[in-house]
Amino acid sequence: MSDSRPIGIFDSGMGGLTVVKEMLRLLPAEQLVYFGDTARVPYGPKSVDTIIRFSIENILFLLKHRVKMVVIACNTASSVALATVEDSFRVPIIGVIEPGVKEALRRTKSNRVGVIGTRTTVKSNTYARLLKEMRPGVTVAAQSCPLFVPLVEEGWLRHPLTRAIAAEYLSPLKSAKVDTLILGCTHYPLLRPVIQQVMGPRVCLIDSARQVAQQTKELLQHHGMSAASLPRNASAVRFFVSDEPDNFAAVGRRFLGFPLNNVRKTTYV
Amino acid sequence: MSDSRPIGIFDSGMGGLTVVKEMLRLLPAEQLVYFGDTARVPYGPKSVDTIIRFSIENILFLLKHRVKMVVIACNTASSVALATVEDSFRVPIIGVIEPGVKEALRRTKSNRVGVIGTRTTVKSNTYARLLKEMRPGVTVAAQSCPLFVPLVEEGWLRHPLTRAIAAEYLSPLKSAKVDTLILGCTHYPLLRPVIQQVMGPRVCLIDSARQVAQQTKELLQHHGMSAASLPRNASAVRFFVSDEPDNFAAVGRRFLGFPLNNVRKTTYV
Repeated sequence: MSDSRPIGIFDSGMGGLTVVKEMLRLLPAEQLVYFGDTARVPYGPKSVDTIIRFSIENILFLLKHRVKMVVIACNTASSVALATVEDSFRVPIIGVIEPGVKEALRRTKSNRVGVIGTRTTVKSNTYARLLKEMRPGVTVAAQSCPLFVPLVEEGWLRHPLTRAIAAEYLSPLKSAKVDTLILGCTHYPLLRPVIQQVMGPRVCLIDSARQVAQQTKELLQHHGMSAASLPRNASAVRFFVSDEPDNFAAVGRRFLGFPLNNVRKTTYV
Repeated sequence: MSDSRPIGIFDSGMGGLTVVKEMLRLLPAEQLVYFGDTARVPYGPKSVDTIIRFSIENILFLLKHRVKMVVIACNTASSVALATVEDSFRVPIIGVIEPGVKEALRRTKSNRVGVIGTRTTVKSNTYARLLKEMRPGVTVAAQSCPLFVPLVEEGWLRHPLTRAIAAEYLSPLKSAKVDTLILGCTHYPLLRPVIQQVMGPRVCLIDSARQVAQQTKELLQHHGMSAASLPRNASAVRFFVSDEPDNFAAVGRRFLGFPLNNVRKTTYV
């Protein structure tokens, strides 16, 4: 039994490309449709109602492309919209929170876990709730880092001022002596060297992209929905964005390591 | 002859409230309708096409409220959309660029003018073009400061790291020896103390809000469209936002100095 329909993935912008990268590695037979809502990015500072509305619109767009499942490759949307949308649509929908939580609980030895994310993600308390639901004895320290996304977009990935800002944001997590830190925003892996330096070499940083790809694989196998093995070809991913595609293609190439020739703009939003 | 219809004002978010404040002072008889596109904020990093589309949608929304003119209280939208929209609608439309340019040219003695703004504003070259058109001998130095808006929104108005970031961004303008600096983004006046400190006390900082109110007054008088004198009352401004109104009302109070009881959410976008 096989299902050749594509997997749909959306993010507020291009952070979700970290998930695409892992999917291409782990699921080479699958076709992907990616939507980046670059006209309305960022979602992080916006309200729950608005993020739910945007997420529903994004899912409807992906469904027009006959996707067999949807991956919300955005921590903010996963935190506040997944619970609302997962029961509303026929296709399975997964987010990035649970895979990151599971991996963090596998890695922590002290049961002291840190979470960093956007203001809305941290305020939603979704990570802390799920961590404690899965392991009641765990201690969670969460911190929003609103300047991290603009710093990544400014390209200040190893700038001394980025390090100083990281030191200020992460100071409460160091005081809380976490041994594992969830990078709860798809932009943050790009700041991994700075974050690791501030937290120290013993703290394990969790980037959920790989776990999301793994969970996708298991879900497809469970439902008998995997694609038949096909040779990988250039059209395996189609990219759509709501703002102009050129910048997305240029920066996306850095994320993925290959040129993005097929980025199209849609004005559905 | 008088015209009691309201003046329409839009911005990508709440920065345009600096213009509202000056309008209330200078035009106490006028009714105002303000629209803040908080669901799609910021406009600064987005493309020209997208900003034009958003601007047209915002103007159509204001026209539903029967406004007699439109003020684009957003530097990015003024830079890239005003030229396209000003001839398309029957009501007069003004932006914030020209008033700031005129004031800067009145103030500069050395004819060396600096401009700071978002990436799209600076890339559009609108300020430099207009400055040189109005005074061909002027030297213009422009610098985009993409982290300033996030720093304002993080509330780090006088934070030492904000000063360090400002020092880095403003260094080319200091080297260019400008004696006048246009704050080409409605958020930047909130960083005025830090910017003044970095630039030194002799550099004149131009915040166009007051000039925009003045130009609005002149335009209304010129067209015989001023409102008849009325006692100021609490409903003189109606606020609409595309994301949730609570945060807008809370932060807006700091901008305006009085409580915003009439902020409503619209989902037209």
